[in-house]
Amino acid sequence: MSLQPGKTVVKEAPRPANRKSVLDVLFGRPLSSEEDSRERVGPAAGIPIFGLDALSSAAYGPEAALTVLIPLGIVGLGYIVPISALIIVLLCIVFFSYLQTISAYPTGGGSYTVASENLGEFPGLLAAAALMIDYILDVAVGISAGVGALISAVPALQPHTLGLCLGILLILTLINLRGVREAGLAFMAPTYLFVGCLGTVIAIGVFKVWATGGHPVPVVPPPTLPPPSAAVSAWLLLKAFASGCTALTGVEAVSNGVTAFREPRVKCARITLGAIVGILVLLLAGIGYLVRAYHIGATEPGARGYQSVLSQLTAAIAGRNLFYFVTIGAILVVLSLSANTAFADFPRLCRAVAEKGYLPYPFAFRGRRLVYSYGIYALVLLAGFLLIIFRGITDRLIPLFAVGAFLAFTLSQAGMVMHWKRTGGRGARTSMLINGIGATATGITVCIILVAKFTSGAWITVLLIPTLILLMSGIRRHYDKIMRETAHHGPANLSGISPPIVVLPMDHWSRVAEKALRFGYAISREICVLHIASEESREKGTEFSRLWHEYIEAPAKAAGLEAPELVILYSPYRQVITPIFQHILDIERQNPDRQIAVLVPELVERRWFYYLLHGQRATALKLVLYLKGNHRIIVIDIPWYLSS
Amino acid sequence: MSLQPGKTVVKEAPRPANRKSVLDVLFGRPLSSEEDSRERVGPAAGIPIFGLDALSSAAYGPEAALTVLIPLGIVGLGYIVPISALIIVLLCIVFFSYLQTISAYPTGGGSYTVASENLGEFPGLLAAAALMIDYILDVAVGISAGVGALISAVPALQPHTLGLCLGILLILTLINLRGVREAGLAFMAPTYLFVGCLGTVIAIGVFKVWATGGHPVPVVPPPTLPPPSAAVSAWLLLKAFASGCTALTGVEAVSNGVTAFREPRVKCARITLGAIVGILVLLLAGIGYLVRAYHIGATEPGARGYQSVLSQLTAAIAGRNLFYFVTIGAILVVLSLSANTAFADFPRLCRAVAEKGYLPYPFAFRGRRLVYSYGIYALVLLAGFLLIIFRGITDRLIPLFAVGAFLAFTLSQAGMVMHWKRTGGRGARTSMLINGIGATATGITVCIILVAKFTSGAWITVLLIPTLILLMSGIRRHYDKIMRETAHHGPANLSGISPPIVVLPMDHWSRVAEKALRFGYAISREICVLHIASEESREKGTEFSRLWHEYIEAPAKAAGLEAPELVILYSPYRQVITPIFQHILDIERQNPDRQIAVLVPELVERRWFYYLLHGQRATALKLVLYLKGNHRIIVIDIPWYLSS
Repeated sequence: MSLQPGKTVVKEAPRPANRKSVLDVLFGRPLSSEEDSRERVGPAAGIPIFGLDALSSAAYGPEAALTVLIPLGIVGLGYIVPISALIIVLLCIVFFSYLQTISAYPTGGGSYTVASENLGEFPGLLAAAALMIDYILDVAVGISAGVGALISAVPALQPHTLGLCLGILLILTLINLRGVREAGLAFMAPTYLFVGCLGTVIAIGVFKVWATGGHPVPVVPPPTLPPPSAAVSAWLLLKAFASGCTALTGVEAVSNGVTAFREPRVKCARITLGAIVGILVLLLAGIGYLVRAYHIGATEPGARGYQSVLSQLTAAIAGRNLFYFVTIGAILVVLSLSANTAFADFPRLCRAVAEKGYLPYPFAFRGRRLVYSYGIYALVLLAGFLLIIFRGITDRLIPLFAVGAFLAFTLSQAGMVMHWKRTGGRGARTSMLINGIGATATGITVCIILVAKFTSGAWITVLLIPTLILLMSGIRRHYDKIMRETAHHGPANLSGISPPIVVLPMDHWSRVAEKALRFGYAISREICVLHIASEESREKGTEFSRLWHEYIEAPAKAAGLEAPELVILYSPYRQVITPIFQHILDIERQNPDRQIAVLVPELVERRWFYYLLHGQRATALKLVLYLKGNHRIIVIDIPWYLSS
Repeated sequence: MSLQPGKTVVKEAPRPANRKSVLDVLFGRPLSSEEDSRERVGPAAGIPIFGLDALSSAAYGPEAALTVLIPLGIVGLGYIVPISALIIVLLCIVFFSYLQTISAYPTGGGSYTVASENLGEFPGLLAAAALMIDYILDVAVGISAGVGALISAVPALQPHTLGLCLGILLILTLINLRGVREAGLAFMAPTYLFVGCLGTVIAIGVFKVWATGGHPVPVVPPPTLPPPSAAVSAWLLLKAFASGCTALTGVEAVSNGVTAFREPRVKCARITLGAIVGILVLLLAGIGYLVRAYHIGATEPGARGYQSVLSQLTAAIAGRNLFYFVTIGAILVVLSLSANTAFADFPRLCRAVAEKGYLPYPFAFRGRRLVYSYGIYALVLLAGFLLIIFRGITDRLIPLFAVGAFLAFTLSQAGMVMHWKRTGGRGARTSMLINGIGATATGITVCIILVAKFTSGAWITVLLIPTLILLMSGIRRHYDKIMRETAHHGPANLSGISPPIVVLPMDHWSRVAEKALRFGYAISREICVLHIASEESREKGTEFSRLWHEYIEAPAKAAGLEAPELVILYSPYRQVITPIFQHILDIERQNPDRQIAVLVPELVERRWFYYLLHGQRATALKLVLYLKGNHRIIVIDIPWYLSS
């Protein structure tokens, strides 16, 4: 006897076997929880992981604003510099706000955490819903924009847009299931190549503008701008600003993922955020300045002759040489990979929400490679769904975007204001002021974006957010209900325990039946054997009760046991499950203080198709007992293993 | 206490509740086994049930022979009378053979029973496989021929051929699941309408031929026959005979279904068979005689201007009036419904085979309406599959046909020869002679059909038959293996029974855990509680063992019970299922003479989608224990029902 009643044994579970499985090759070997700290990153790896999304915005933010300005022709270019300046100011406000959040929430201060801790349950859920939608769109837009850039370069791929999008989604999924650190390493080279190339283009461009006294000659002249077809209006400029704000999406990523940094955590995170925002400001300012100097406007998306703004700019400044293609290649790769920021953050957000009970709790489990696998699965499914219904076309996705991001910004900043008010202390007033300005600016931006883009797609986001909130609070209510019904804060009631009444359906006498009978006697002395006979086989019933005396009753007596009760039920309608279930319910009713254990013998086949050879009566009986049974009926599977 | 140990109680299972379900409306109320005899039929209902297939053959048999003769033009018509005569002679031989089978096997003498009882296992399986394929083709050909006739009348329906076929298949299925008797009643009117109309056409035709001295003037002249494009050859005539033999398919149905007749069974069955064959002979002879007299040949199937032979014949004799359309309508309906004979016989054949263990035993269960439901499902699936792969076109299905039927005829007759040889007695020699002639004639026909149609499709049947035989003997071998391993002809071994060791995985203390613990104590005193903690939540493990003393150990001692052993397992790789399973295996190995009962508490949700809110760990643990466990490990579900 190896059990030690009353003793407590604490030990380590055995390590997984050492052989390499297919999973290991695809996702890497399993990581133990102790290896967690080695999976943490510094600023150099942090910039690609948390900054890809923000940096890549430089590739579509300015273009989105210029696209709105197309009807103004050459006149529109005059407005791109002030719009860019306004966006940069907004970016700086948001930057200082988030710097404070990182210090205040070193364990990860995503908008959800900040809003729910400082503003209450509902604002928290609002922020969570907004961010979730934002991340899902991030993935869809990033991938579709990358594929869009690829298609500008190789138009022959155009019919395969959706396939390419889904292919990239799959690759990202595999990389991210391997874990955060390896994902960061994989993205380092393309990110720095992108920043380096674009930085070089901007530096050369600025030099040329300066050298020519503001009148540079493009190496490859950009397409001529169309003549103005509309007058300047505040509405148009507002819309351009709203579109350009997509350049800010992704800035919150660092504050959300502080725990992913190595010690000193807060410092690493702040350096990373500073570097990301600094680079992004330089890129946005450079692009805004140079497109005006070179007279470059957006071309109609989806129409013949479409060419992205960055492609025109690079060609105008550096010519169509090898460097041009390297730059375009880097933009393409970074856009596709920008989706990865959402892969790093969405599962963390889901975990935080799940830990509060608003999402199914498996979202809080860490998988074999220390990532929150369920969050990754959910993100991939939803982004794939979006890509499929919008056929992978960026322009259709953009209007849904940015509402979520700016709503989350606003709630996060507003939460920080309340945080400082609550904590007080040195510098709290300054911090409150900074976050207050942030909340106001981003709040106004949300309103502008909502108004400017409502009819072209933002309404979908406006509908989705309350839907998500309802879903999440429904989940929480259900968990609360389960908790109320099952919670138990007190000692076990172990009085008045008696063995169960055992019911054993038996079709014919066999080794399987004998095994079940032995188990029945092992747990109780009150056994009822149930035999169902159809009208057609009355003889079978008679035969069974004849064998009964010889095979069961006699040996029971010999072993000093009381023989079981035998119930033979004739079933005129040839039903089997129903009479058994009815009889069990009868016994249950007649013994209100007892538990009923139903033994269900089953053959275990070694191959699935052999199950086709058996009626599914055991399965059906178990299902009926499980679904229609009650607390006092317990089903016990008695497996019989066939030798293989 | 309601159990009476050692007593035997025999009672009737309660009748099903009286409310009408959807099933009742679709299939009729359930029938009790006692109502069986009321479901039996006499000759008037027997002719439609068992004769539809044979009688409807008159609509495609002669046409199939004439189609082969098309290249001979007018010359071919000269050969249709001798070919028809040969087919009629063959039919009479088969008829007398089957009359004897009915007398010898009053409990149903299908080819399978006769061949396996008299010739041995392999010929029996051969006959069964041949007949199964024949029945499946019967359904497919009957339905597609009926739809073909409908399309000749309403060409606009042509694109919906397959859809119409599958629709008719569905209707037949529903009718047959209601049971034999109601199916017979549903088919009586169209059958007698068909026989009446066709009989009238033939009678008028014969009278006109006689009145005009052998040169009748057609009311609507049939299409002119094409000029001969080939010379008469023995090969062509052989092929025409082989095709014409499809007219005999379905004759065995009565002998197969003798038990479906009311008493005096044998007499009823013989009368029914006589009536069916008599009508069929008249139809075949009349058609053969009249097509020559009216110079009617077949038209190219599937080509423009196709018109069936019976349509030409009716129009030529009676004109295109209301009677013409009624006749064509009756042919159409009877062809579609001819599939029904297979519905009556295929499930009976499957039952006979299943009772010998060559098919899964649920084929021998009778359903709620006293029909063998599994056989019906299998027939519908296979026939539907055939219709789909051949797109519902009769002409492609015909060559697969007839081989099976004649092979079964041959084996059945040969079996009867052995039967008479074995039984001996008065008249045995005559009977042997009759069956011997039958066996020889049908055996020669099988060879002719095989040779004449091998390349055009009979090879598929030739491949399918051994496949089916292998499948059936594989099933039987598997059942034999199970039987060897589980059979037990002797008294139960009830010595040395001891309570099981109970293992209870517990994540946290709750009412669910308390219920499981109480059940554990109800069946054993040796309990091991297993708590899995991850590295991340070492505190959780410590907390659990703190609560342990207060909530479990103390009350156990107070109730005079030994406290369970507590095992806390730290799982560095965050696995849960694997460490539990490993620990159970360890306990099992250390206690070679004991049974291990694993208690798995589970929440029972009232709606399926709530299951998405829970990890599937309980299910996964049960599955692992079930598949990788062994005879000594027993899984016990402890359900916790949430109030709805």
